[in-house]
Amino acid sequence: MPSRELVIGFDADDTLWHNETIFENVHRRYRDMLSRYHDAATVDRTLFATEMRNLEPYGYGVKGFMLSAIETAIELSDGKISAGEIRELLKLGRAMLEHPVDLLDDVAATVATLAATHQLILITKGDLRDQERKLAKSGLAPHFRHVEILSEKNEDAYSTILRRHAIAPENFLMVGNSLKSDIAPVLALGGAAAHVPYPLTWAHEHVDELPPSAGRFFELKSIREVPSILAAL
Amino acid sequence: MPSRELVIGFDADDTLWHNETIFENVHRRYRDMLSRYHDAATVDRTLFATEMRNLEPYGYGVKGFMLSAIETAIELSDGKISAGEIRELLKLGRAMLEHPVDLLDDVAATVATLAATHQLILITKGDLRDQERKLAKSGLAPHFRHVEILSEKNEDAYSTILRRHAIAPENFLMVGNSLKSDIAPVLALGGAAAHVPYPLTWAHEHVDELPPSAGRFFELKSIREVPSILAAL
Repeated sequence: MPSRELVIGFDADDTLWHNETIFENVHRRYRDMLSRYHDAATVDRTLFATEMRNLEPYGYGVKGFMLSAIETAIELSDGKISAGEIRELLKLGRAMLEHPVDLLDDVAATVATLAATHQLILITKGDLRDQERKLAKSGLAPHFRHVEILSEKNEDAYSTILRRHAIAPENFLMVGNSLKSDIAPVLALGGAAAHVPYPLTWAHEHVDELPPSAGRFFELKSIREVPSILAAL
Repeated sequence: MPSRELVIGFDADDTLWHNETIFENVHRRYRDMLSRYHDAATVDRTLFATEMRNLEPYGYGVKGFMLSAIETAIELSDGKISAGEIRELLKLGRAMLEHPVDLLDDVAATVATLAATHQLILITKGDLRDQERKLAKSGLAPHFRHVEILSEKNEDAYSTILRRHAIAPENFLMVGNSLKSDIAPVLALGGAAAHVPYPLTWAHEHVDELPPSAGRFFELKSIREVPSILAAL
């Protein structure tokens, strides 16, 4: 029988720790490398188009990003990019994978507080090993009862997770920075969702409209406000 | 309370469907591409060394292989490999990801037979999305109660899975082609294991010695022999 206790799901990248800032820094160096071929806007637009085209075969994560970045560099330079520059791109990618995990403000204390009273589940997408490594480095692993690393965060995926852990949607709260991946699918299933925006959002994560959610949607400024909304659930 | 019924785990690549043959075909084209710089043995040895060095950051799977293949091509050609050739490598990698799933002989019938009487779990490692796609294409998905895609298949990983699904090791049989990933860790935990060799084995999957297993280890010629060993368990 599903438990009636509230279970809290947390997104990882840009909800618990910084991620998009690392990508943004790499984008800047990538634009510099290609600046003799094209302006920054063209580089950004072409790279994003390549990433979207490759999302089906590659999925999310740093490795797919690196492959798309190499492909785009060859395309934008009309094949003139050098092997040495491609080696630099590979190094940039490995540096992303080896980057320290920087927790966002108030994350450590808030997650520890909530773990004392609630079952917490980490629900994230991206490269399997990269996400596991970041969780291990974060020091937050002991607070999570379960860890779910997904290839896509849509209604089907959340539905499978809730079923697997015998959680009724009305007893589930998801906390995350992406309206598209963390908020909309959970609201659509009848769960509650708290949006904690991150200063940067990858274009792919934008969403036009949220499902109706009558009292189940919370727009927060910081993760430390999460405990204060639990009484309303 | 853990169930006393036997649960059967299946590896995927080279146990249910062909995989190493696809890699071998790509290796052949890779050697051809680099043949004007180095002999085949040097190409193979250097690529394998790069893959092993990158296993920690990249993990298993096609995307990590592609990144290692690009890195090795730059190294072995002393930076003379062209952007056009690297684009060919990217194409080879995408072709691997889009390759049809060819089931091994007798897999479809054996898995369907076993699923009628036992709980089956797919336990595999590699790229998250790639493994999910192969399972979907295989037509075998309805036969598996659970699917576990791991970043590594060692004792810890199997132990976590058995705990999660409340399976006692003595009620677990793992079927797979890799002595290192499918057999040794399960025997070490006290489970049973059936080895069904594949004609090709990636060098990384070789193992020198198996743990003691008194009657819990089965060396089979084909997956269709699995039903016949169940009576002994």
